[in-house]
Amino acid sequence: MFRFEENKCYRMPAHFGGFDCPGPDAALYYRDAVSVSFTYATDKDRLEGQFILVVWENKTAPILGGREETGIPKIYADIEDLHTIKPNYYTTASHEGNTFLRLEMLGAKPVEGQLLADAQASAAKINALGWRYIPKVGSPGADLSQPILYPQSAEIHNSWAGSGTVKWVQLSWEQNPMQWHIIKALAELPMLEMSPAIMAKGIVILKPNNGRVLE
Amino acid sequence: MFRFEENKCYRMPAHFGGFDCPGPDAALYYRDAVSVSFTYATDKDRLEGQFILVVWENKTAPILGGREETGIPKIYADIEDLHTIKPNYYTTASHEGNTFLRLEMLGAKPVEGQLLADAQASAAKINALGWRYIPKVGSPGADLSQPILYPQSAEIHNSWAGSGTVKWVQLSWEQNPMQWHIIKALAELPMLEMSPAIMAKGIVILKPNNGRVLE
Amino acid sequence: MFRFEENKCYRMPAHFGGFDCPGPDAALYYRDAVSVSFTYATDKDRLEGQFILVVWENKTAPILGGREETGIPKIYADIEDLHTIKPNYYTTASHEGNTFLRLEMLGAKPVEGQLLADAQASAAKINALGWRYIPKVGSPGADLSQPILYPQSAEIHNSWAGSGTVKWVQLSWEQNPMQWHIIKALAELPMLEMSPAIMAKGIVILKPNNGRVLE
Amino acid sequence: MFRFEENKCYRMPAHFGGFDCPGPDAALYYRDAVSVSFTYATDKDRLEGQFILVVWENKTAPILGGREETGIPKIYADIEDLHTIKPNYYTTASHEGNTFLRLEMLGAKPVEGQLLADAQASAAKINALGWRYIPKVGSPGADLSQPILYPQSAEIHNSWAGSGTVKWVQLSWEQNPMQWHIIKALAELPMLEMSPAIMAKGIVILKPNNGRVLE
Repeated sequence: MFRFEENKCYRMPAHFGGFDCPGPDAALYYRDAVSVSFTYATDKDRLEGQFILVVWENKTAPILGGREETGIPKIYADIEDLHTIKPNYYTTASHEGNTFLRLEMLGAKPVEGQLLADAQASAAKINALGWRYIPKVGSPGADLSQPILYPQSAEIHNSWAGSGTVKWVQLSWEQNPMQWHIIKALAELPMLEMSPAIMAKGIVILKPNNGRVLE
Repeated sequence: MFRFEENKCYRMPAHFGGFDCPGPDAALYYRDAVSVSFTYATDKDRLEGQFILVVWENKTAPILGGREETGIPKIYADIEDLHTIKPNYYTTASHEGNTFLRLEMLGAKPVEGQLLADAQASAAKINALGWRYIPKVGSPGADLSQPILYPQSAEIHNSWAGSGTVKWVQLSWEQNPMQWHIIKALAELPMLEMSPAIMAKGIVILKPNNGRVLE
Repeated sequence: MFRFEENKCYRMPAHFGGFDCPGPDAALYYRDAVSVSFTYATDKDRLEGQFILVVWENKTAPILGGREETGIPKIYADIEDLHTIKPNYYTTASHEGNTFLRLEMLGAKPVEGQLLADAQASAAKINALGWRYIPKVGSPGADLSQPILYPQSAEIHNSWAGSGTVKWVQLSWEQNPMQWHIIKALAELPMLEMSPAIMAKGIVILKPNNGRVLE
Repeated sequence: MFRFEENKCYRMPAHFGGFDCPGPDAALYYRDAVSVSFTYATDKDRLEGQFILVVWENKTAPILGGREETGIPKIYADIEDLHTIKPNYYTTASHEGNTFLRLEMLGAKPVEGQLLADAQASAAKINALGWRYIPKVGSPGADLSQPILYPQSAEIHNSWAGSGTVKWVQLSWEQNPMQWHIIKALAELPMLEMSPAIMAKGIVILKPNNGRVLE
């Protein structure tokens, strides 16, 4: 009969067997990573630190791992590959054919010298803060509700800055029953001041065994 | 600041607010559902009841709900719409372009009379048995590891039977790092006796608040 | 060396060999077809007959066949499966994450009796009118530019009527370089009078050898 | 009423209007292009020059342009983004969930010095040879059947070589009615001698107005 082995790590479905738990230095690399960051000030900033409000991702497996193992609140969206019409870059996020976010970075120019060095230094350690919430079965309340610190890091090889625009499109409940309230909350935040959009190419490094529950 | 409201239900990300918990009779309907069941006897049948080994599904939102709220071990696959070349039906499951399961139902004929009535009766109550497993953060072992009973039901309007074939294709670790061991375990089960493949059209009814942890 | 065989039919790439040409009664069946028709009067109706302005389809092979073999001006879009929240039905068409068309059918009720019989009669023969246009290579003008009559038929088994809404979303050139002008032209047509939306379930029958060039 | 304007270029559907024909130097750039080439000798090499047997592509718009405007025999497949587990690279081509081609490049090492310079020189001009075949409507034979020379070029910025493996999986007619004969023909070619797999990063440049029909 199936038994859990001590010192093994498991994921649901667990009964197909466990695996050797990753050691403290075991790392996953996203090579050839391209990130485009859009940043703006709003007036609801009552949170400190990199508390992750929500992450849309277009692949199920890391969504499951992020939610269940580190409390990163990932949900699904279709995210377009970056469309490049140099020096402009475009992407959209949609869900079942309904666009809810359009991102444009225009007039990208290289970031060099001290600015690049600063970006590299700040990417070297990212203290992502998640909140793992697993509901009770069949009744209100949580079986797990806990803040989790998940340190990550990135090596930036090249970087560009441009002007950024962020366009939210609110959706009706019928269009997106599981996410419309999240999109609505984000779309209603005022954009007080838009920072430059920053594109970075490099490597993202995740150490899955380095997360820990904050007491 | 964000506070959880008592008696509300939440899903990750929880900080965007909760929702009224579904009552005991609240139901979700999958209308126009088409199921095709392939059944075979194997020699490892040490489990009793409808213990769900694994469910591949091609949509992320119900995968998250199934895993986190009812312990149904759902994972992602691309599943083809049923290809119909009457009286034959075909589908495949693949992951990132790698086919791992091919299902064929040949020579479908209507199921009628007492056989249909029996199928309708047995679909009226399905006691799905899941196991919710949420690992500890950053170390071996589980924060939650519990059997869950999740009753479901289906109304069968029409049914057909035909001869079924099930072809597993094993994948390498490189092709599917998260699922290859599950596929390998299922592919290695001997097929001792193949039952007819059964196609059913009707409605699937889920009552999300009816799940409960088994003590 | 490769030679074309007389009396065989070919498709590009032709050098992998031809196939027996379909006879005049050879037919393709789309079984379990569901159509939802949204109809409105506009003020630019200078065309008579079922001249096909454009067809968005979400599968490449019939797009190629439609364009090259019968002059039906098919282009690609992602089209959502019909979302059903009875008695309402929803779908969207998008291209690379950009929604350009949202269709809603609300309050669907069965169409019965004489109305259903009329719909069945009018679907029995549909004279689709296409225009095949194949440009010259490397210079303006056409190598082929010809009107084509492509008779089709459908068997309607069930039908429903409801109120329909059609919402076009114009896209910029950057969002959809190949189609934005088509979407713009259609979006700018006034909707003078909206007819009921009609959903029909049944079978579509194509006889690929029945198309002919109009002189 | 709609009229074709002289000196304009058109694509199906043509009645939405034409566009200024691209001049002889107008160019399309695929920037950030990554190519992986798998080359092997076979015993059926009776063709000289870069005659394009077939191109699988995962986007409809350039498939249409390639077929109708330059005779490149493009057909659709789902092609995975390159999976990178350094120094190995993997991809697959599948159609509706059925894998038909698996490509692996193992042990990639940079190509430098004279070898790189040679690769750059040979990529600077590629004489792609297509065959445009447009069938008659409703009867055997062709309205257009013509060889087309379509010069292309690429700038190679970096290159790597590794050992390559090419695995074809034959499909049944039911699995892929439009392509199974093409896959079968390619899968049955013997692989007499496998050359190194070559990965190249750089820019592909297409000059759509430079194609011409060969007499």
